[in-house]
Formats: sequence, structure tokens, C-alpha cells
Amino acid sequence: MATKDLLNDLKPIQVNTRVDLVESQIREYLDKKGLRAGDTLPTEMELSEALAVSRNVLREGLSRLRMLGLIESKKKRGMTLTSPDILGSFERVLNPQLMDNATLQNLFELRLVLESGLADLLFLRKTEADIKELEAIVKREKPAATDVFRVNSEISFHGKLYEMTGNETLKRFQIMLLPVFDYVIKNENRSIRSNITHADLVEILKSGTKEEFVLAMREHLRPHYEYLKP
Amino acid sequence: MATKDLLNDLKPIQVNTRVDLVESQIREYLDKKGLRAGDTLPTEMELSEALAVSRNVLREGLSRLRMLGLIESKKKRGMTLTSPDILGSFERVLNPQLMDNATLQNLFELRLVLESGLADLLFLRKTEADIKELEAIVKREKPAATDVFRVNSEISFHGKLYEMTGNETLKRFQIMLLPVFDYVIKNENRSIRSNITHADLVEILKSGTKEEFVLAMREHLRPHYEYLKP
Repeated sequence: MATKDLLNDLKPIQVNTRVDLVESQIREYLDKKGLRAGDTLPTEMELSEALAVSRNVLREGLSRLRMLGLIESKKKRGMTLTSPDILGSFERVLNPQLMDNATLQNLFELRLVLESGLADLLFLRKTEADIKELEAIVKREKPAATDVFRVNSEISFHGKLYEMTGNETLKRFQIMLLPVFDYVIKNENRSIRSNITHADLVEILKSGTKEEFVLAMREHLRPHYEYLKP
Repeated sequence: MATKDLLNDLKPIQVNTRVDLVESQIREYLDKKGLRAGDTLPTEMELSEALAVSRNVLREGLSRLRMLGLIESKKKRGMTLTSPDILGSFERVLNPQLMDNATLQNLFELRLVLESGLADLLFLRKTEADIKELEAIVKREKPAATDVFRVNSEISFHGKLYEMTGNETLKRFQIMLLPVFDYVIKNENRSIRSNITHADLVEILKSGTKEEFVLAMREHLRPHYEYLKP
């Protein structure tokens, strides 16, 4: 074996910078101490001494935690812990241009899975006003729509479904996934048609059962499922 | 109305620090320029001049992007864009102690929705080895199990299902959501029992249809769904 081949399995060592370590150690510390939102953290001076790092390194680490929404600095009260915005940083990295194809495909599937599983929440929380709004959305759809129009109408309809779950995290999550969905759908062949339209789904939500809706939604999504790789 | 009441609707102004601005402006810049993973960024000096900020402020902003996995610094090549680890920062903030109850509840529901929607991916990608493993997990379950044992067995069984989807993002996402699930389940009353056991689900995966599985899974999750608020 050539000595060059022997090097194949050696990968560059992943070096954690001081800032990486400050960031992860403070997160571990919060966890171990059982600190909760509203609790006050030690001062910058105390932290930099305890971690034996310079104030600059400490501040860079704290800056990351601030971005994650884990801490905030208040006048007079110093640094306090906050309830993090759990989707905030996810939102920051969800740039389809930068994601590799495997990740895009995974997120696309994740969204299909979510959509297939909405039935119980929808039947638990739907209101008459919701159904009326869905009907209005369907009415605005045109059979001979252009691609752009079609995509927009997909977004209104399915977006409304997520909104009806009354779950803010789900709703925001699906909005964040829209660019991904758009990205993958563009590469799909459109020859497969579903037998279940938006209008059918609304009808079932209005006067059908949860079980009917579950099965109908899966049929509605079939054109996307058919393109998935085994 | 007392002047004090008049102040109720005034909230403290959210001040974006220079670092916040650096971070968001660089992200926007990447997006607008259509830069992709592997592309090289301008140098620190060029960026700090263009953004008219000090090197310290710039570095703090870049440090955040580095944590998000959007950029990395390489010897000789300078800073390059990377395919972000989309779940990395989500993982950093998923601390049940710090989350408010509404968020915990939302994430719990999100996981139920995912679980209810797995059928298509499972039937698309299941293998004989998977089924055998599920059977082994079920065999290890004991009827009179303690709570801890029961939770662990839930985790093995449902974790295996996620693994079978072949979707790395889904799989990691569910592992991240486990502490949340655990947290909420502890507060559930256990008097409701499902008619569908793990053994039943495996049997259907083995020789039933997708449709049967979808409905069985929903019945299996019913005890959790019953506790959701309308």
C-alpha cells in the first residue's frame, strides 16, 4: 500500500477554540445548576476568573449565548437567563443555498411527515371560521393556474392548516421550511396527480371523520411521496 | 386612567447591538450574493472596513456565524462558507429547564405529529433486519415494568422507528426532543390505555398495510392526544 493511501483515514483534528469551550462550559453549568429563566448569572469578571479566560474570550462566548436567546443583559440586574427562542437560531441557518442535497431532502421528508400527522390536532382545534377561510382559499384557486400561482395557493392552503393546529412552534417551523419545500418541488416531475384535492380535504374537515382525513391527506401528498427514494 | 396604566403598552425598545447587526448583515450578504458552501469570504480586514466596525466587533459577529456552522477558517484559504449543521444550534437551546410551558407543550405536540406521520417513510424503507430488531425490543418489554423501565422501552421502540425512516435529520430531531417528551409525560395522568401495543405495531409493519399502520399508530398515541387542550 502506498504511504499516501495510509493517510486516507486521518482527518484534520477538530480544535475547539477557547470561545467554543467557554460557550459549552457555560451551557453545561446552567444545566447542572438547574438554573431557570429569570435567574441571574455571575458577573463577567467572576466568570472570566472562574474559567481562567480573558474578558475578550468570555465576551465572545457570552455573545453567542445572547444570540441563542439564552441570556440577556439588563441594566442594574446584570446578566439573566431567558427562555430561549428555540427556532431563532434554526431560522438563521436555514439557507437552502448553503445546505447540501441530503439535508434538503431530509427536511423535505420531515415536512411531509408533519403534514401527514396533522389530523388529530386539526380535529381537536378547528373552528367554523377556519373552515370558512379554507373554503375561501379553495375558491380562489384556478384550474389552469400557472406554476407560481399554484405554489402560492399550496402555501396559503397548507399554511392555514398549520395555523389551525394552534401550535405556534409548528406554524413557525413550517414557514421556515417553505424555501426548502419550494427548492425540492422544483425538481419534481409533475406527471403524478393525486385523487384528493384541497376542496376534498376541506369537505372532510367539515363533515368527515379524523380517520377519513388522515387517509385523504396521505393520498393528497402521494405525488410527493412517490418521488422519495427507498 | 392613571398615568401609570398609560405606560402598560410601552415596551422597552429592543436595541440591536453592533454585533447583532454585523451578524445579520453578513447572513443577508451571503444570501444576496448567492454564495455557496466552499466559497471564500473576504478577509476580516476587508469586512470590517466595508461594515465600518472595529475588528473586535467583527470577530464577535463572525464567532456567532462560526458557532452556527456557517463559516470556518482554514489555514492559507481564509474563511470559507460551510454547509451548516442545521440542528446544531437548535440542540444548544433545547434545555427543558429554561423553556416556558407553552414551548414545551408545543414541542410535545410536534413530536406526536411527527410520530403520527411516519407510516409512509417506514413502509418505504423498512427491512427484515429492522423488523427483527423491533421484535427483539418488544420481547424485552415486561408487563409489570416500573416507570423508568417503561420510559426506556418507549424510547428504544420509538427511537428505532425513527431510525428506520433512514432520515438522519428526523432521527436526530427526535433524540433532541426526548427530554421534552420525558418532561411532559411525567405530568400526564396514566389512566387512559391504548388498545394497540408495540407488538401490534410490529405485526402490522411486518404483514399489514400502510393504512392499517397509520390508524394503529394513532390509536397507540391516543393516551397522549387525549390530554391535549382544545
